[in-house]
Amino acid sequence: MDSPILQRQKHGPGDQIFKEGDEGRLAYVVEEGEVEIFMTKDGHEQVLGTVGKDGIFGEMALIDNQPRMAAARALTSTTIICVTRQMFDEKVNHADPFIRGLLKILADNNRDMTSKWLSALE
Amino acid sequence: MDSPILQRQKHGPGDQIFKEGDEGRLAYVVEEGEVEIFMTKDGHEQVLGTVGKDGIFGEMALIDNQPRMAAARALTSTTIICVTRQMFDEKVNHADPFIRGLLKILADNNRDMTSKWLSALE
Repeated sequence: MDSPILQRQKHGPGDQIFKEGDEGRLAYVVEEGEVEIFMTKDGHEQVLGTVGKDGIFGEMALIDNQPRMAAARALTSTTIICVTRQMFDEKVNHADPFIRGLLKILADNNRDMTSKWLSALE
Repeated sequence: MDSPILQRQKHGPGDQIFKEGDEGRLAYVVEEGEVEIFMTKDGHEQVLGTVGKDGIFGEMALIDNQPRMAAARALTSTTIICVTRQMFDEKVNHADPFIRGLLKILADNNRDMTSKWLSALE
């Protein structure tokens, strides 16, 4: 049952929020704190970026239904708001078809550029 | 004056549609043909991808108001539909604030990943 009340998670510094390859069930909005997005390649962590207050992360898996391409961990004491697939789909399905196309293309380009970047690191 | 009638451009193979660094006044939808998106680094062209029928390109500059980060050229005889900033903004401004935030974040991540990729090529 989905509740209309927003679910929150609290994490301490270093807590992993999701792993590479996980099925993406939720996107997140940072209410407080800072989250690091990273990938592991040949045993080395590559930081993609950090997400601060009001930033969104974990959205990619909900847009294109692919497994998580990166992992997320809290850098500080962090509170995140969970956006369920149902909430997400409702917002996206109400959007103009051009906007939906745009989201899909931006997500595709992101995955594509991320894999180009990883290949270039070799 | 903006006309409600969609403006189209026709390009032959090899025609450049826009250049890196240009101000982005239009986004495009490919009606027919194929378009290549590329960047030039140290005199070498790096292909970011190709866009076929119904694909959107040139949208980044309209989302984040930055100069074109890549160039576009027609690979074949190509017809593209022009999306003006006014049409674009109207669609985006009618979207849910969460969706607007999502577009901005995806565009930011794209620029960021593209510059990471270019640095990794060095």
